[in-house]
Amino acid sequence: MRNTRPILAWETLLDLEAERSDARRPLRDRVEAALRLAIDEGRLSAGAAVPPSRTLAETLGVSRWVVTEAYGQLVAEGVLEARTGSATRVAEQAGGAPVRTPPVPRSVALLTAPPTRFDLRPGIPDLRATPRSRWSAALRTAVAELPDHDLAAAHPHGYAPARDAVAAYLSRSRHAVADATRITITHGATDGMGMLARELHHRGHRAILVEDPSWPRLRAVADDNGLRSIPVPVDGDGIDTGQLRALASATGARAALVTPAHQFPLGAALAPVRREELVRWAREHDALVIEDDYDAEFRYDRRPVPALQRLAPDRVALIGSLSKSVSPALGLGWMLLPPDVAPPASTAPPSLIDQAALAEFLTRGDLERHLRSSRTRFRRRRQRLLDALERALPELTVTGIAAGMHLVLPLPPGASATQIAAAGTAIGLALTPLARYEAGDRHPESLVLGYGNLDDALVEEAVLRLAALLGGR
Amino acid sequence: MRNTRPILAWETLLDLEAERSDARRPLRDRVEAALRLAIDEGRLSAGAAVPPSRTLAETLGVSRWVVTEAYGQLVAEGVLEARTGSATRVAEQAGGAPVRTPPVPRSVALLTAPPTRFDLRPGIPDLRATPRSRWSAALRTAVAELPDHDLAAAHPHGYAPARDAVAAYLSRSRHAVADATRITITHGATDGMGMLARELHHRGHRAILVEDPSWPRLRAVADDNGLRSIPVPVDGDGIDTGQLRALASATGARAALVTPAHQFPLGAALAPVRREELVRWAREHDALVIEDDYDAEFRYDRRPVPALQRLAPDRVALIGSLSKSVSPALGLGWMLLPPDVAPPASTAPPSLIDQAALAEFLTRGDLERHLRSSRTRFRRRRQRLLDALERALPELTVTGIAAGMHLVLPLPPGASATQIAAAGTAIGLALTPLARYEAGDRHPESLVLGYGNLDDALVEEAVLRLAALLGGR
Repeated sequence: MRNTRPILAWETLLDLEAERSDARRPLRDRVEAALRLAIDEGRLSAGAAVPPSRTLAETLGVSRWVVTEAYGQLVAEGVLEARTGSATRVAEQAGGAPVRTPPVPRSVALLTAPPTRFDLRPGIPDLRATPRSRWSAALRTAVAELPDHDLAAAHPHGYAPARDAVAAYLSRSRHAVADATRITITHGATDGMGMLARELHHRGHRAILVEDPSWPRLRAVADDNGLRSIPVPVDGDGIDTGQLRALASATGARAALVTPAHQFPLGAALAPVRREELVRWAREHDALVIEDDYDAEFRYDRRPVPALQRLAPDRVALIGSLSKSVSPALGLGWMLLPPDVAPPASTAPPSLIDQAALAEFLTRGDLERHLRSSRTRFRRRRQRLLDALERALPELTVTGIAAGMHLVLPLPPGASATQIAAAGTAIGLALTPLARYEAGDRHPESLVLGYGNLDDALVEEAVLRLAALLGGR
Repeated sequence: MRNTRPILAWETLLDLEAERSDARRPLRDRVEAALRLAIDEGRLSAGAAVPPSRTLAETLGVSRWVVTEAYGQLVAEGVLEARTGSATRVAEQAGGAPVRTPPVPRSVALLTAPPTRFDLRPGIPDLRATPRSRWSAALRTAVAELPDHDLAAAHPHGYAPARDAVAAYLSRSRHAVADATRITITHGATDGMGMLARELHHRGHRAILVEDPSWPRLRAVADDNGLRSIPVPVDGDGIDTGQLRALASATGARAALVTPAHQFPLGAALAPVRREELVRWAREHDALVIEDDYDAEFRYDRRPVPALQRLAPDRVALIGSLSKSVSPALGLGWMLLPPDVAPPASTAPPSLIDQAALAEFLTRGDLERHLRSSRTRFRRRRQRLLDALERALPELTVTGIAAGMHLVLPLPPGASATQIAAAGTAIGLALTPLARYEAGDRHPESLVLGYGNLDDALVEEAVLRLAALLGGR
């Protein structure tokens, strides 16, 4: 059965690499050409759904914009068909009759995403420092000690010991007002956002205020569940609560998604007066604030700021996960909800074993142990990156507080972050334009430099290569 | 913060046990009374969503019918509000002002689901025989050996090694026509059914033919995703393909959900002529057949029948999982799809570590090793159960082929399976009326006796208690 069309393997289906030799050709053209080729050769047949743009963007290692532009062109030509609220598909008249062609060999997958030597992607922890032996020990204990009776029982919002352990962790480490009965165990922040978005939609919400710029994945999940995202500007004090009020009245939005501890990606901490103001707005308008607590534990200049949730447990839903603090491979996270917010239980929750391991990992103090060593590692790496940038690009000034796993580098006038990032890809340097996270064009052309997974030994070389790209534009 | 309303903890919120002393009171009345009490006391506030009926039924260990009846009564009285397509909620005028009451202590959870000494629930494997050390070894290897690079990569339809291993397993063990590019790794059959239902709905399907009786969970997932389920009668040769054709023409349904290896719960294997006929229907009407391969590996009189998918890889989607063959605590399953069926990737797939462990478990042959020992165990237990039934209830005749983990016991005329099951609950005997799985009333009053998790040492005592219940009716 090797002789069938590999419809599902997007990473093997689109051979971007075949086009890559022509480095001057824009990425969107190459994605478009690869899609066209797959359709012409019958590897993608009429009616087949193409993946959501963000999924394909992640699979191919390109920006979402590249994919939406490529899809847009092919829709305009009638090669693809887009319908609101559902997948984009290959048009019925697009390809010829379905043709059985030999599958693309798996090795092509490696070509489409060349090994990234200098990993400056934001939002990824140090993959080399994954606490493998500690997580393995937690799993071993979970598998050995889970009572037989619990193995087949229903755990609608999560396994009780995991909910207890998360509540205790959030209380002591994030100073949240946390009770186990208000915790839901999730697969991560995206999963939690999905459940909350469905619940908000059910309650009649049709819009949500989001920071601009912000993490596109959570906005996309809101969109996918019928909540239009309304961008609110961000400045050095975090989200602009004055503009938030104005946009909320103009649109009727009564929900907001924010990153108070460390705005993503600009890096501000939400100022105390704005915290108060945000909560006041929520109270006055019966609104829900969703606090994405994604890297709150990594603060290098002072103790982490307590969760916003502490100020208003009745108005703030906190979503968190181990994906950015420990590893995305664990697929575990949580929500802490106000008493009157109760989304239906997931039909596909994390496995009981994973949840029991989470309980074990938290109860043993392994998470905090890992966070401590990560803090030390990231603080040093951040300083090293700042020093290297100061030496190689003294005219540029990074922005953002001493926190997290990324910083923002505004580029000199005339430089295009998108072009620099495209050129970086060709030499194993993974760079991300700030524009990828923006709804409007509010900020100067910038790169978001993540250092969570940047090899310590390669910091200086990464910066020298970046400087060369900037010098050679 | 222990002083808040435990909105999410349904298992602690409804104190069925407080009502249980009055054993003559029907279960639905007791569920209704518990809901009423929770609302009156402010534990459930106005606007709060109650769980889907099947979730609450599972949580409380009662039949779904009990919950839908209780909800129905409260909706009729205006205490709850039901809206099509969304959660049932506490009506605005139902409770008083939200009152802060002390939480129900966790120990109440144990009371609502008393320890089931004689576990005759169908669909649950032997929890005492969970291959803990083998699964633990697979997890250990996965955590130790996953390449750093894979930890943060996108795996839209599953981790490639897991897809490879599942394809190989389905080819050699189920004789399926399986290619890794057509495999999606899921959390289990329910998760897979959810993805397929959404895809079918997207393609314009609004109905699905289902066996009657059948597993309610998968039907419910189809319903929740906009596919009305149309019951098709089942006889000793499996689903009645003549009636299927008639009902398909009458309703326009072009999808069918079937259990060809071992009809659940009646226990027939789908006859060869019907297999051919089912595939012919699908080909003639551009239809999709979903093969729920839930316990196909457990056949005691001959080799397992190959998967229906083998006959028509272009028309049959096979869904399977480890939940009934190994343990529901693993939260892992798979789909094998026709080339032109490609649902969008899940936003909350199983964790990478779990998927790598699945690959390891399958590749090592651990699944087949576990299935072999389970087959021996279940064959003996089934015989022992048949012998005990023959001695204690010689006038009754069980039905179903020598397969799986359950059998069907038609009751003597006049006996009520629902009453027997309710009486069983009070003495630690978990019994399931066949009616729980039926859409119509096609079959004689029967009990479905699962023996997957029945303690070998208690088989005879379980049957004696059952005989006493039947004798004392």
